Amino acid sequence: MERLFIPVLLGTGRADNKSVNAAKFVYSELSKVEGVSTKLFEAGNMGYSVTVPPWGKGGADEKETAWKEAMTKADGLVIVVPEYNHGYPGELKLVLDSLYKEYEKKAVTVCGVSSGGFGGTRVVDHIKPVLIELKMVPTRGALYFSKVEESFDENGNMKDPKTAEFAKDVFDELVWLAEALKDKKG
Amino acid sequence: MERLFIPVLLGTGRADNKSVNAAKFVYSELSKVEGVSTKLFEAGNMGYSVTVPPWGKGGADEKETAWKEAMTKADGLVIVVPEYNHGYPGELKLVLDSLYKEYEKKAVTVCGVSSGGFGGTRVVDHIKPVLIELKMVPTRGALYFSKVEESFDENGNMKDPKTAEFAKDVFDELVWLAEALKDKKG
Amino acid sequence: MERLFIPVLLGTGRADNKSVNAAKFVYSELSKVEGVSTKLFEAGNMGYSVTVPPWGKGGADEKETAWKEAMTKADGLVIVVPEYNHGYPGELKLVLDSLYKEYEKKAVTVCGVSSGGFGGTRVVDHIKPVLIELKMVPTRGALYFSKVEESFDENGNMKDPKTAEFAKDVFDELVWLAEALKDKKG
Amino acid sequence: MERLFIPVLLGTGRADNKSVNAAKFVYSELSKVEGVSTKLFEAGNMGYSVTVPPWGKGGADEKETAWKEAMTKADGLVIVVPEYNHGYPGELKLVLDSLYKEYEKKAVTVCGVSSGGFGGTRVVDHIKPVLIELKMVPTRGALYFSKVEESFDENGNMKDPKTAEFAKDVFDELVWLAEALKDKKG
Repeated sequence: MERLFIPVLLGTGRADNKSVNAAKFVYSELSKVEGVSTKLFEAGNMGYSVTVPPWGKGGADEKETAWKEAMTKADGLVIVVPEYNHGYPGELKLVLDSLYKEYEKKAVTVCGVSSGGFGGTRVVDHIKPVLIELKMVPTRGALYFSKVEESFDENGNMKDPKTAEFAKDVFDELVWLAEALKDKKG
Repeated sequence: MERLFIPVLLGTGRADNKSVNAAKFVYSELSKVEGVSTKLFEAGNMGYSVTVPPWGKGGADEKETAWKEAMTKADGLVIVVPEYNHGYPGELKLVLDSLYKEYEKKAVTVCGVSSGGFGGTRVVDHIKPVLIELKMVPTRGALYFSKVEESFDENGNMKDPKTAEFAKDVFDELVWLAEALKDKKG
Repeated sequence: MERLFIPVLLGTGRADNKSVNAAKFVYSELSKVEGVSTKLFEAGNMGYSVTVPPWGKGGADEKETAWKEAMTKADGLVIVVPEYNHGYPGELKLVLDSLYKEYEKKAVTVCGVSSGGFGGTRVVDHIKPVLIELKMVPTRGALYFSKVEESFDENGNMKDPKTAEFAKDVFDELVWLAEALKDKKG
Repeated sequence: MERLFIPVLLGTGRADNKSVNAAKFVYSELSKVEGVSTKLFEAGNMGYSVTVPPWGKGGADEKETAWKEAMTKADGLVIVVPEYNHGYPGELKLVLDSLYKEYEKKAVTVCGVSSGGFGGTRVVDHIKPVLIELKMVPTRGALYFSKVEESFDENGNMKDPKTAEFAKDVFDELVWLAEALKDKKG
């Protein structure tokens, strides 16, 4: 199998957020999938600001280039996103809106995170029409990280071993779709 | 190229609806695509009722069988749906919810219809998370039929010749995705 | 306080559905709120069918009249809706789409139901733009009935006593909004 | 009638955006409504950044204070938002997520903006569940600014005089709802 490159994007930049544990777990599990290489990006640390948008006149900095470079060669994407008032964080949307043609016909999986018991279910659905408009191809599969503050130990390790099994199924679907799209592109 | 079978589903059963003209146009244009065969279904005429749901105890009638049979062998689907209060018609949802595994990994394109000027844009996005949950794979491309009462002549023919060109682009994307998924399934 | 009339609408007509327990619980708790009278409607038992839509030429039957009559005098509405493939059941949409001006400036609360652990969170958000387009005014508050098959005993009684407390808060918000709108209408 | 304070929030910070013309038009028309005072805010110019979020440890600057101060005393809000890939701009979400209790039980109207012909219809619906979660109460009415690059003259004035009439109806509904909520709060 040809090697697939599938970055992971953490969709929050809030200080001391716990979603980073979920993103690192996703990154770690995805790294174990045969034939897949990955890289972790964090929306809060990519050089975007509101007053000097990256899509403006010039000004793309080194960090933006890393994201653009990654998505240019990527075969897919996993987004790990906490639910903020049922929607997506602004910093995630800034990152997503900064590119366009780089996303075309690439598979995307969205994983939700929440402090409460519903695992970010709403933002996972909420963002899908946006990803489709960006020409990405969403999978059905998702991981839902409920009660994120309690789900990881002090070293940031997922407590529930079943989550790795769920992850495997979700990544199987993602890899299948990424390969289907890549094969067709030739 | 192996032949693709891509049914068209009209998502309304209202008497004297004008969306049927849009659905017939889509059916007709899709029929012209090389390597594609199609069939037109109408949500209002498929034997569903609310009080005796098709998912209930037995009772699938001949018309339901035709839909199930079609989706079993289908490689994709085009839904032509008017926007009712920004959402999808109930009769369309009844039809969609009546099957499940038959939809898996099949490409789907949604075309919106409206009496007003916005072409059903809202329902096209609104229904996408539902289609993904049904394991279908949505395309970005869509046709938007605004002012449907005025867009077709008395014989039901589309007045604006550009729409057929738009349709060609939309179907190119659909065929590409349907083929990618079919090839991968092998 | 002037008496408020706030019907409860169960949004499914599937045979042997368990959402009816949630709807009866909501109906029962709402009945206990001082100054509120209510009535339970079930979407599967209101005389709608797909092939002879109620909005068609004539043909409103007795049951449709009961719904129209109820919403004409209603000050608010509670919808109890299971999540079908992340969206609303077709039969619920048929009922909602059958009226229009009767809903204007009336408060509405949506309660979700699911077999799994997410309580119908997705359909609760999914339907809100539709209810707004119908000129209803949605509350934020909601009840989420997760694992509905296990949450009620064999007599259909809610096992968890905390749910009645949650219901009280949700209905407080609904009554507040319904009164605000009613007072302003004068 | 007691005076209502209803700020206008432009939901983009992109350099040289044309949505600012729509926001200024909304601000200007809203200023003419008897009993209403308003103030214009721009999401790109409110001191937020991704790497130093306003909800973080300290650091609220003067501009944030102006927004918080405004929403604390506001009776309603009008959001003017361009549609970015069918969703809301990140900078708008950063601003909205920076407050919470200040929004409670305040009326909100969303106006969409687009370069194309659909007037931002999708983002107007897309953001409503978010606003409800923030405890705001959305109106049905909206203005849709299609083809925004062509709709204003070189001085930024709306070319089509009918838009002011539409605005009047939209603001009538907003004022009605803002008054209903304010009266009830007492």
